[in-house]
Amino acid sequence: SLQAWSMAPESLDTPYRGGFIGTDHRFALTVYFEDTDAYGIVYYANYLKFMERARSDMIRAVGVDQAAELNRSGSAYAVVEVDIRYRRPGRLGDDLQVVSSVGEVRGSSVAIPQRVMRAADLLTAGRGTA
Amino acid sequence: SLQAWSMAPESLDTPYRGGFIGTDHRFALTVYFEDTDAYGIVYYANYLKFMERARSDMIRAVGVDQAAELNRSGSAYAVVEVDIRYRRPGRLGDDLQVVSSVGEVRGSSVAIPQRVMRAADLLTAGRGTA
Amino acid sequence: SLQAWSMAPESLDTPYRGGFIGTDHRFALTVYFEDTDAYGIVYYANYLKFMERARSDMIRAVGVDQAAELNRSGSAYAVVEVDIRYRRPGRLGDDLQVVSSVGEVRGSSVAIPQRVMRAADLLTAGRGTA
Amino acid sequence: SLQAWSMAPESLDTPYRGGFIGTDHRFALTVYFEDTDAYGIVYYANYLKFMERARSDMIRAVGVDQAAELNRSGSAYAVVEVDIRYRRPGRLGDDLQVVSSVGEVRGSSVAIPQRVMRAADLLTAGRGTA
Repeated sequence: SLQAWSMAPESLDTPYRGGFIGTDHRFALTVYFEDTDAYGIVYYANYLKFMERARSDMIRAVGVDQAAELNRSGSAYAVVEVDIRYRRPGRLGDDLQVVSSVGEVRGSSVAIPQRVMRAADLLTAGRGTA
Repeated sequence: SLQAWSMAPESLDTPYRGGFIGTDHRFALTVYFEDTDAYGIVYYANYLKFMERARSDMIRAVGVDQAAELNRSGSAYAVVEVDIRYRRPGRLGDDLQVVSSVGEVRGSSVAIPQRVMRAADLLTAGRGTA
Repeated sequence: SLQAWSMAPESLDTPYRGGFIGTDHRFALTVYFEDTDAYGIVYYANYLKFMERARSDMIRAVGVDQAAELNRSGSAYAVVEVDIRYRRPGRLGDDLQVVSSVGEVRGSSVAIPQRVMRAADLLTAGRGTA
Repeated sequence: SLQAWSMAPESLDTPYRGGFIGTDHRFALTVYFEDTDAYGIVYYANYLKFMERARSDMIRAVGVDQAAELNRSGSAYAVVEVDIRYRRPGRLGDDLQVVSSVGEVRGSSVAIPQRVMRAADLLTAGRGTA
């Protein structure tokens, strides 16, 4: 329909990208069935997927092409440590935000504090070290 | 920074939604590490996740709240059959589009043909019956 | 304890392997939280994981080392088509059996019919073509 | 065949269970394609799946039926915190062992130290608090 075409189809075909607000990187996502478990909440390992989507997006935003890196070197940045605290459960259909910042750099490693939020509610607070 | 704030932070915090172009529903996504396997390509079961994200988005677009349905009835729409053909592999960092249409309705079931595209390239062609 | 050691610790450290009964390959697994979704049942894409575990085990049983193949060639057998019918839902804690057979060979491709059973109950009937 | 039937088919249809050796719980698994990513190694979030399979098995071994608990109460034990260190990568086809112990009890919470081993090699060392 004319109305539908007026909705800018090219924007429908462009995946979401997060971005920086000052020094914080923000990445939004929706909770789908694949993310939940029989408790009716987001399965605990899946927050690490959300955190990695946000880190990949952050790395892309600063100009690194992980796929090209992978092809070139066969390896890329590796997570060596994850700490995560589960505060509130995410649920099917929730709109979440992953807020990442660049933390302390120690030698060749960098700590990346990450929070998964549902608007103002903190769901998990974690830190990946890469 | 002022510049960053000028980038409309609220849009960063809003997850992607697909939408209809005429009778086709379009849903875009990016391939992350979680989606890939040791072959370096999207793991075959994960296309079913992509297809379900698109169906969930389509259902939301026509006004159904699956989470509310689930709370109310303890169940919701169920997939009874999936057929999928794998044509070309998706890879890390790819931007993909899931194109869904509403197919044949037979009694209480509806067939939903779905294609996963990378721009003009067809990666998979499938059909879920719900 | 002496009692515990009498339980053959080496068997605890050996992962499960399925095997052939005649021409059928049988592979057993337990449903864990990771396999379920907010409906309280096995998420539909995860049956493809179960089917692939069984195919990998079957391929190993006939003497193919997929990891070595992958290292040598960068690729290995690929699924080109999956058809699956969902009959009954699997649930948390269920003990399931994947029964695979070697089906019709057409040129370089082979169809592998697979059923996921809970004792005598058929949960899904599918067929992967590789 | 007679030979195949002599292989005890009922054991093929019985999923693996881990068990205790003294106060350590041991749980073995094989790495399948679903567990790996484009780096060719086990995806970092999937170690949390391995750890949860082992905890579920441990809980079952001491007589708790999680599925019944879930049906009765709608909830069950929840992980509130995970710390994990990644030391060596697991790879496709690896046979791994998850070694869990019951750690410090603080009020209503218990820390469960868990190591994922490949024979004598430590892949990850973690701790879930439930």
